[in-house]
Amino acid sequence: MQELIPPARLLLGPGPSNVPYRVLRAMSTPVIGHLDPKFMEIMDEVCQLLKKTFRTQNQMTFPVSGTGSAGMEAAFVNLLEPGDTAVVGVNGVFGTRMCDVAERCGAKVVKVEAEWGRIIDPARMIDAVQQNPGAKLCAIVHAETSTGVLQPIEELGAFLKKSDTLFLVDSVTSLGGVKLEVDAWGVDACYSGTQKCICVPPGLAPITFSTKAMEVIGKRKSKVQSWYLDVTMLQKYWATGEAQRLYHHTAPITMIYGLREGLRIIQEEGLETRWERHAAAAGHLEKGLEGLGFKLWAQEGHRLPPLTSAHPPQGWDVEGIRKELLTDYDIEVGGGLGPVAGKIWRIGLMGENACVQKVAVLLRALQDFA
Amino acid sequence: MQELIPPARLLLGPGPSNVPYRVLRAMSTPVIGHLDPKFMEIMDEVCQLLKKTFRTQNQMTFPVSGTGSAGMEAAFVNLLEPGDTAVVGVNGVFGTRMCDVAERCGAKVVKVEAEWGRIIDPARMIDAVQQNPGAKLCAIVHAETSTGVLQPIEELGAFLKKSDTLFLVDSVTSLGGVKLEVDAWGVDACYSGTQKCICVPPGLAPITFSTKAMEVIGKRKSKVQSWYLDVTMLQKYWATGEAQRLYHHTAPITMIYGLREGLRIIQEEGLETRWERHAAAAGHLEKGLEGLGFKLWAQEGHRLPPLTSAHPPQGWDVEGIRKELLTDYDIEVGGGLGPVAGKIWRIGLMGENACVQKVAVLLRALQDFA
Repeated sequence: MQELIPPARLLLGPGPSNVPYRVLRAMSTPVIGHLDPKFMEIMDEVCQLLKKTFRTQNQMTFPVSGTGSAGMEAAFVNLLEPGDTAVVGVNGVFGTRMCDVAERCGAKVVKVEAEWGRIIDPARMIDAVQQNPGAKLCAIVHAETSTGVLQPIEELGAFLKKSDTLFLVDSVTSLGGVKLEVDAWGVDACYSGTQKCICVPPGLAPITFSTKAMEVIGKRKSKVQSWYLDVTMLQKYWATGEAQRLYHHTAPITMIYGLREGLRIIQEEGLETRWERHAAAAGHLEKGLEGLGFKLWAQEGHRLPPLTSAHPPQGWDVEGIRKELLTDYDIEVGGGLGPVAGKIWRIGLMGENACVQKVAVLLRALQDFA
Repeated sequence: MQELIPPARLLLGPGPSNVPYRVLRAMSTPVIGHLDPKFMEIMDEVCQLLKKTFRTQNQMTFPVSGTGSAGMEAAFVNLLEPGDTAVVGVNGVFGTRMCDVAERCGAKVVKVEAEWGRIIDPARMIDAVQQNPGAKLCAIVHAETSTGVLQPIEELGAFLKKSDTLFLVDSVTSLGGVKLEVDAWGVDACYSGTQKCICVPPGLAPITFSTKAMEVIGKRKSKVQSWYLDVTMLQKYWATGEAQRLYHHTAPITMIYGLREGLRIIQEEGLETRWERHAAAAGHLEKGLEGLGFKLWAQEGHRLPPLTSAHPPQGWDVEGIRKELLTDYDIEVGGGLGPVAGKIWRIGLMGENACVQKVAVLLRALQDFA
């Protein structure tokens, strides 16, 4: 078997995004042990950086040793016990996945559905929580990667803050690319992935749990159904502060090296500057696409800057041209899922790709098909 | 926050082991998409290499997107349903962990215990299965990382092959370093980790399921409790052969690049040669340690070449010298766990560290404390 030589792709799909050379360089750093005192320092640094990125003071803020979906699972299996009720917003693949995960925890799921490509009216989420007193949690996707919709969550958070219901948010495609304020918005549990706006390869799921969430977990009657994702044990490894860290599982050291560098780059740029850069690049892309005859799909006023969804111009071979872009131009864009499979494209401008240079490359390539 | 510059450690503990520069170089390769046709080719190659390393023809052979403990969890949650019986051998940390994981699946666990540092008599495992007709699975740790014991499993495999009980084996510290024959020994499910004898950073758990195991999974009455680890869905992404691969979760691409290179190195060396090299290095180490007054701990005749456990000479500050080795010599060795915490050392010679050069470094450093 030959040396690994994959093509050099420009990743403008729904993730993974291209990884800065600094992150790859950090990941080629020789490994040290997961219980080495020097690694503990690195863990502390990563947790500090994650807190800044999530805008939270939550002590239990760490990277789950798996991809974004493991983060989703970690949130649900820790917070839910059999018989609990979960109110879940569903307007795309990831809201749908949340329901599946919650049901596997033995929870009763109350779905609040909206059309794909549109937001869920926050008032309907609030209403569903009020209709289900005692609901253990209310979950929603901040940035639906399957549709390119940015869900407003502040109003819902403000409401839930005054209730006993926990607020769980999926920020896989928003963290580091779109404004997200975990503490200020009353979010109790929030998970993300490394391969979107954080610009680190897939493999870790940053997550944070509020004190309120940790108290609920502390009162569980049953063990968390996943040993691997059990935060009551993981906190003894990750969230000890000065105390002795207890071995749980071997941390994915190289991925953590990469995450540290990715988060360091974010801090150097500044989170607000980064949000603005994503918004500016997306605005540039939207204008360019419309100029080429694309029709933007996601609900106006609620479009997700890191991921633009659009119908290609009439007459275009939607999937055929997408494949040509990949094979001839080395440019990856994403296809549609579910009701819009084969109908739309999902174009990601995440992390270092959120810039006019990358927009220019794509738009010029698309002109060849116009 | 400064650039990441961890110390350059010689990793002679229970894992992670040092990673060859070729693997680190492969991991610094720019990322491509997890649904890119070129990535599908890489996935096929990794699966082929894993089959060779596990010595199996099992179609469902792939790397779980998590560390070795995620592999353990993947094996149990897929094979067990609430009410099932699992016979589990326990003579160290990882057998104990298996029981915890199995109980979280709602299974009834029948423990077959032996003293830490000694093997479990295969006849006692067979007896326990016979005493529990209808047991869904029988699980044992091939290489107990907490004790340095290599468990004989062939006889148990031959017995289980003729029964309906599935044979589940933990090969975290044996795969790639010690003889393991998944098909010939009748193993139905076997998981490992990348950070031991495979010499790839922690973050993936190679796993394989036999046809018999997949049939049992296919007849489940309940959904697998973990969405993330559900092999009925994962097989549509990983084990499709020529068919269209279905997205499940974003694969940890960079880790898979590293695994491909680590497995390629193993094939270049040859698996038997590698097993012999581990055995030779361990023999050399054992002799040297005894010469220094160490007393080997694991049961004679059943010592695990990649991990040697031993009591340091009388009068040594067991934990103090271990720390000095780390801070002054940049050499990591492992401490004892459970009943031998603070009493033994666990010295790993895994992958590229299984050579006389590394043994010489350690022995010479130890002479300074004699």
